[in-house]
Amino acid sequence: MLGVTILGNNSAIPAHGRHPTAQIISTQDDLLLFDCGEGTQIQILNYKIRRSRINHIFISHLHGDHYFGLIGLLSSFALLNRVQPLHVYGPAALQGLLDQQFQLSEIHIPFPYHFHAIEKDGLLLETPNYIVSCFSTKHRIECRGFIIRQKKRNRKILKNRADSRDIPFNLYALLQEGKDVTLENGTVIKNEEVTIASPPPKSYAFTADTLFDPSLIEQIQGVDLLYHEATYPHALADKASARFHSTTKEAAEIAKRAGVKKLLIGHFSAKFDDTSAFEEEAKEVFPYSEAAIEGTTYLV
Amino acid sequence: MLGVTILGNNSAIPAHGRHPTAQIISTQDDLLLFDCGEGTQIQILNYKIRRSRINHIFISHLHGDHYFGLIGLLSSFALLNRVQPLHVYGPAALQGLLDQQFQLSEIHIPFPYHFHAIEKDGLLLETPNYIVSCFSTKHRIECRGFIIRQKKRNRKILKNRADSRDIPFNLYALLQEGKDVTLENGTVIKNEEVTIASPPPKSYAFTADTLFDPSLIEQIQGVDLLYHEATYPHALADKASARFHSTTKEAAEIAKRAGVKKLLIGHFSAKFDDTSAFEEEAKEVFPYSEAAIEGTTYLV
Repeated sequence: MLGVTILGNNSAIPAHGRHPTAQIISTQDDLLLFDCGEGTQIQILNYKIRRSRINHIFISHLHGDHYFGLIGLLSSFALLNRVQPLHVYGPAALQGLLDQQFQLSEIHIPFPYHFHAIEKDGLLLETPNYIVSCFSTKHRIECRGFIIRQKKRNRKILKNRADSRDIPFNLYALLQEGKDVTLENGTVIKNEEVTIASPPPKSYAFTADTLFDPSLIEQIQGVDLLYHEATYPHALADKASARFHSTTKEAAEIAKRAGVKKLLIGHFSAKFDDTSAFEEEAKEVFPYSEAAIEGTTYLV
Repeated sequence: MLGVTILGNNSAIPAHGRHPTAQIISTQDDLLLFDCGEGTQIQILNYKIRRSRINHIFISHLHGDHYFGLIGLLSSFALLNRVQPLHVYGPAALQGLLDQQFQLSEIHIPFPYHFHAIEKDGLLLETPNYIVSCFSTKHRIECRGFIIRQKKRNRKILKNRADSRDIPFNLYALLQEGKDVTLENGTVIKNEEVTIASPPPKSYAFTADTLFDPSLIEQIQGVDLLYHEATYPHALADKASARFHSTTKEAAEIAKRAGVKKLLIGHFSAKFDDTSAFEEEAKEVFPYSEAAIEGTTYLV
């Protein structure tokens, strides 16, 4: 299972009830947070996210609409006497800024807190079940997108069938790896007789803020779900590129060329109240496009 | 006219739909903002406050629930190409923190921006119509409350009556000051024949975060409206004092002894969903008490 809950789908200035960027990634083990615009902790309450389960926070870049909510969230974790470890990944300069605010506001972090400065593209986090890595995007300041890929999971043993064949427990590991096994009496058990495949591993990519940039395609090739910013309608392509942002059709073009299964667009300009036209434009280029809606969880 | 619109009535951790401290003071000329917790700019949108009219922001202290929303608000002002001057008053350390965020997040302030470090109690701002001053409260860190007092306004000339007595325009200023005037023909015009008093000047005090502290009484004596924090019900008086906060009855005791006309309590602990019991407790000590409600404008 992999889920993406949109807490904020707006660009820099909050407007029309929309909030700055933040999204919760639900894995089978824990919750990750991609970006943390102002008010993220309030959106976490609004959408009844179990905040204590968030244990990795990734910040794409230091424009305020992607991180101004982080200090408030950390502060609340401290006041709530959180005990679970927390890892924050972001541009190196963020660490000093947070430390300064901890000091000025007398925030004493009672839980194991680890800041990881993102200094290059590549692997950020590996757990038994998934990998998170990052890649550079083209924005006005240093900016990185994130991608989470579930690992291939072992085959599942069908307990009833395994028992009926008297398979001893010490052979289970081989079966989970997809191998056939031989019992002590010489009987060969074909793997597919007693196991089934686990669901295929899923992947989700978040491109943060970026110009239209075909070099991203290689990074996000074939992901199950792509969130690509589409700050402007395509008629404003010049404005988009001047501001290092993308349009609806540019986002869809990337999705199409990368062969992703589904595209979510977001980071909508505050100038536009209605986002349905954004969705329509994207669909003209890539039919599996959807305008992200706050509070919605997209299952990957 | 003086109005106080509550944008946040909660203490440190947002909860129950309540937000951290922020309030808009409406004067006849402009809007002031007292404190700016996270999400203030979103509350400003929710309650349709004309943000361009906010030209003075006062920050009581550097606990996050009183200032984490400031950088986002300033950032949005910048993105909106605000032109009106803006004055921010707060603890000296806030200036460096904001400057650092302006730099890291590439926020270019296009409007005249003035930071005023609050280093002592007393006058902060004087306009033709009102005065804002500050006073120290007893909190864990340096903290100041704010008080706005309208100036006494001149008497209003009743135009019809003045015309019927052939009073020349050059005598108006004397009449506005309450003086009698003598016409060229020697006729004496009694002031009250052609003028009426303007509404009496109003005053509002905000005590920010504080222990129960009778030395505040002198500062806020007789104000029309007092906002005093009441983080805890009175049964938790020990907890309140350990955390440098006040209870319902302590707030009401201050209001009563200071002879204020009305008390608003707020800064409610996140532990409590219902604030009506807070109001009841305060009323037992001071009947003109009310639990502050977000979005409500209290006319002074």
